[in-house]
Amino acid sequence: MELQIAVSKVRKYATSSSGDTVEVVERPNGGLSIVMADGQSSGRGAKWISTMVVRKVISLLAEGVRDGAAARAASDSLFTERKGKVSSTLNILSVDMQTQSLVITRNNPAPALLVCNGVLNELNEHSLPVGLYRDTRPQIFETTLSAGLTAIAYTDGLVHAESRNSLTLDVPQEVMELIQTPDQSAQVIADSLLARAMELDEGRPVDDTSIAVLRVLEKVSDSVRRMVVHIPLEPKYSLF
Amino acid sequence: MELQIAVSKVRKYATSSSGDTVEVVERPNGGLSIVMADGQSSGRGAKWISTMVVRKVISLLAEGVRDGAAARAASDSLFTERKGKVSSTLNILSVDMQTQSLVITRNNPAPALLVCNGVLNELNEHSLPVGLYRDTRPQIFETTLSAGLTAIAYTDGLVHAESRNSLTLDVPQEVMELIQTPDQSAQVIADSLLARAMELDEGRPVDDTSIAVLRVLEKVSDSVRRMVVHIPLEPKYSLF
Repeated sequence: MELQIAVSKVRKYATSSSGDTVEVVERPNGGLSIVMADGQSSGRGAKWISTMVVRKVISLLAEGVRDGAAARAASDSLFTERKGKVSSTLNILSVDMQTQSLVITRNNPAPALLVCNGVLNELNEHSLPVGLYRDTRPQIFETTLSAGLTAIAYTDGLVHAESRNSLTLDVPQEVMELIQTPDQSAQVIADSLLARAMELDEGRPVDDTSIAVLRVLEKVSDSVRRMVVHIPLEPKYSLF
Repeated sequence: MELQIAVSKVRKYATSSSGDTVEVVERPNGGLSIVMADGQSSGRGAKWISTMVVRKVISLLAEGVRDGAAARAASDSLFTERKGKVSSTLNILSVDMQTQSLVITRNNPAPALLVCNGVLNELNEHSLPVGLYRDTRPQIFETTLSAGLTAIAYTDGLVHAESRNSLTLDVPQEVMELIQTPDQSAQVIADSLLARAMELDEGRPVDDTSIAVLRVLEKVSDSVRRMVVHIPLEPKYSLF
């Protein structure tokens, strides 16, 4: 089997910094986690919040803390730090080799998607962002690891992508179309969803948008682990 | 400009776990760092060491600590924890948007490579791994960020790749050949170097091998950040 992870991320049009943070961490007992947070509002303040939440979760996961406990700790920590005045959404997608499971953790009103052998489930139980209340708990979904699983999480930029006009992105339908292709790569799914959202926003995203896709494919793999990151670099603003 | 990062990683033949750890972290003032460590010996013990070193460095970089200070802290920390009895190599490749620079940090007897507009420099000043002595300092190279820069670091698996026969991998020469192609991707460079090393090892790597490549290309980018990870998953060993 092969585990594929893809993250595609764009910031709100005309802002200096995305308020979303996404990082990937290796789990100490085998496996990986993608941690994604969308800090309240946008720009530098939002980035501070989402970075704080992601760093907290990652440092706990790296110590072997379970996903649910890490999410609760991040919520309590943000609540304590900012007195319940700011919130952040939080999603964790994990492949845990110790328990041989896929774990989807949500503190996010936006749903997460799980596709299992061509059947799509929308994980949309009521879920609060972290940081607003004491003892906020995440929604957790866990299933046995097997080939044919796809988990997708996204920040609300993807679903707010219609706000400048009346067009709406139907994420589940887009996903179902994309996974028709056998062994469709996680990268193509993430990139195509983001491209569709940016089309609706006429190339000027109305919000920070991040998409994380995790796939387990049957594919025979060559035993090499690979990671690739591409980041646009802008020249420093001149004083002139 | 576009920043490209690629990591390719394979573990020693017939071991359960690679002793190398590589992680990528976003810097709080803009930019990214790749942190790579090769723990002494191989298997789980080595993994514990390299994970400890990388986690220490990453948590400090995420707080805004400079690369050199983070490397020294990781060394002192491992020295204190294991009383100078175990070592780990450490490399940090950073793009720092605050100082607009590329920073290469080495605690590794193996050289790192810097290619600047087609000219290759081998960074091979005497450098000790972390953990063996109090106050081990890294070798640091810093240069202004510009298109056309390539930095490459690797663990010694790549240069020990000849140990089962008399063939030797000439890493600088391989790199020079690879970058002849205009806009050659970081991914192709990392994958090709690993493939050459595995050829010399006849498909059974004699050591854990990790390669990290960072390129700054002139390329006009579409403002989307992308990350892709591919990991082979092996089925859990059955009792039968």
